[in-house]
Amino acid sequence: MRNIGGGITAPIGFKSSAVACGIKYENRPDLAVITSDVSASCAGVFTTNRIKSAPVLVSREHVKQGVARAIIANSGNANACTGEDGIEDAIAMVGETARFLHCDPREVLIASTGVIGRPLPIKKITGCIGKAVKELSASGSIMAAKAIMTTDTKPKESACVIDIGGTDVRIGAIAKGSGMICPDMATMLCFITTDADIEPAALRRALRQAVEASFNSISVDGDMSPNDTVLILANGMAGNKKIFTRSKAFEMFSEGLTDICLNMAKDLVRDGEGATKFITINICSAPGKEDARQIGLAVANSPLVKTAFFGADPNWGRIICAVGSSGIAVDEANISIRINDSHIFDSGRPMPYDEQQLRKAMAGKEIDVTIDIGMGKAEALVYTTDLSYEYVKINAEYTT
Amino acid sequence: MRNIGGGITAPIGFKSSAVACGIKYENRPDLAVITSDVSASCAGVFTTNRIKSAPVLVSREHVKQGVARAIIANSGNANACTGEDGIEDAIAMVGETARFLHCDPREVLIASTGVIGRPLPIKKITGCIGKAVKELSASGSIMAAKAIMTTDTKPKESACVIDIGGTDVRIGAIAKGSGMICPDMATMLCFITTDADIEPAALRRALRQAVEASFNSISVDGDMSPNDTVLILANGMAGNKKIFTRSKAFEMFSEGLTDICLNMAKDLVRDGEGATKFITINICSAPGKEDARQIGLAVANSPLVKTAFFGADPNWGRIICAVGSSGIAVDEANISIRINDSHIFDSGRPMPYDEQQLRKAMAGKEIDVTIDIGMGKAEALVYTTDLSYEYVKINAEYTT
Repeated sequence: MRNIGGGITAPIGFKSSAVACGIKYENRPDLAVITSDVSASCAGVFTTNRIKSAPVLVSREHVKQGVARAIIANSGNANACTGEDGIEDAIAMVGETARFLHCDPREVLIASTGVIGRPLPIKKITGCIGKAVKELSASGSIMAAKAIMTTDTKPKESACVIDIGGTDVRIGAIAKGSGMICPDMATMLCFITTDADIEPAALRRALRQAVEASFNSISVDGDMSPNDTVLILANGMAGNKKIFTRSKAFEMFSEGLTDICLNMAKDLVRDGEGATKFITINICSAPGKEDARQIGLAVANSPLVKTAFFGADPNWGRIICAVGSSGIAVDEANISIRINDSHIFDSGRPMPYDEQQLRKAMAGKEIDVTIDIGMGKAEALVYTTDLSYEYVKINAEYTT
Repeated sequence: MRNIGGGITAPIGFKSSAVACGIKYENRPDLAVITSDVSASCAGVFTTNRIKSAPVLVSREHVKQGVARAIIANSGNANACTGEDGIEDAIAMVGETARFLHCDPREVLIASTGVIGRPLPIKKITGCIGKAVKELSASGSIMAAKAIMTTDTKPKESACVIDIGGTDVRIGAIAKGSGMICPDMATMLCFITTDADIEPAALRRALRQAVEASFNSISVDGDMSPNDTVLILANGMAGNKKIFTRSKAFEMFSEGLTDICLNMAKDLVRDGEGATKFITINICSAPGKEDARQIGLAVANSPLVKTAFFGADPNWGRIICAVGSSGIAVDEANISIRINDSHIFDSGRPMPYDEQQLRKAMAGKEIDVTIDIGMGKAEALVYTTDLSYEYVKINAEYTT
């Protein structure tokens, strides 16, 4: 596996484009279209929030048939909490896209992000879809990546090539999201393309695994949005031997997809609202994989831990309290904690360490925390940010 | 029921005192003793964190026998994550207290609060217990309330008198806690005294009910400490007819106790770290009482909701997202939201309202949010704070 440039248009047979419709701001690209030259297998993972946006409800139906041609996505308005009108607007968007692409509307997937509870300026959007389709380009990935940004400070894209049985297969992705990032994917969108030939059930399975290890293992603030969506299109144009589950080829594809999703997930964390640090929490020796992830997220979501990291304070007391409140039956006497290279807590007891030196190391941009639960063999990696003044500022002063 | 002064020494036959042992700071009262002139019925509720401090482990054993004479409590050091030595230190504290009071060590309950993972300066403490016992006074409540403070900005006490069957019965309390406040009682201590004559099972039940409606219905930051403790001593000196469960007298006592606990809980929220607002979340028309509380706490714990309140922003989108992520199967189309007097969301749709006026109202110190789930008859009140720059500052810049 090798990282390459080009994002979602790196795989063969994909194009994308972006236009400015004036949804929230004038002259800012806010509508992206992604197409496959041929019908593609598709799969999606959506928010677990009980409140679901109209585009999530529509896409969830459309992915069920397993075949798609295009994705249309807008920023500036989430089309969430907009009732029946919202559903009609989402259907109008996919309908207009299908009309220009000469495909079935159910072959168009849709996603929206932005402010909640405002009616979509649907006329502005449908009036621009023709232009977006006309401008589709095999180098349009970065345009689309920019058009889906909200409070993101930079566009996010990634692509890789994998050799599967002697054939090069490409996977590319774009993503957005920086606030409301949390387990089960809060206000984040990720669109993935691949030219792999892969059977739909295998595609769904690979996507679910990749999301678990990436987007569901990060947390900025523990909040969850009604719009979270990860979509993948696989058009088979690489010409590889079709991939089925339980094969070496599936493992390789799955690994590549997870890697791309992880790149995107880490970029989301790095661009987290007000984030000054990237924190990797490694939970090991846990009873089970899910236990490990639950403990990691409890630590990642603790405001006291996050503010301590912001202050470069190796406060293992707060860490162990968060571990203890995770709901998993841990035993203090078995727990050990390491921050970067300093072993600060061993089998339930504080260890002597050079506090001055550790504080200096923690003042940097990356912190690694390893928490050994001492009760099993499972492990999980969770990624998060610190909690800074800037986070409060961003979320107190703007309606996002 | 009538509120009176005097805190824990308002009920007949209780004394308290405080001394400065120099546990963390010099010349600051940091050790409190509370005694009953006669053996009292006792009950306790403790942290649900898997990591439990030594005093929690000791008190949990001692309350089991249902009879106690005294409580000893220190601030400045939590005696948590201190292993076997911590247990020995806690036992030394109760032993020394019992020696001066001429009672069984198991009749002494204990609690600690402060920094985690540091050995208790046990010699300093045991050396001061004699002095503390000598200074016990029937007007010592405020002294004890001050001695248990950590980051609290003011001491917290409350007392009331209830007429039960023609006899005046008094209930008094002191409490501490301002950071780490969350469901299941995080870093908070509350000691309650009453001169009621009440059967131990009835006392335990009344305490559990009162804690549920008060300390378990507040949240400052969703974190949980290993030290949370609520203790009650009931010495029967009011001379009322003994109270048993399922009686009018029990209902009255229970109501008075809940009221006192709620006073203390609200004081904890008002004194929450960095809090600039007191927010009451009223969840109504929920399927069940526990569902209502879970939804209320999901809203109270959402950093996006809390920062919006800090910014006086009536952001119902964030509120409804938090409701949707609570784990309860709500339906957006049934939900209505009111902030103060403004009905801003009705049965799934945003309502027109005077935003300017509502923002002005939300700039005040108290905000009432009513969320109608539209799915049943249960309700719950949850109390919380906003999330301010000051919260980040307090928790990033000091090791607490």
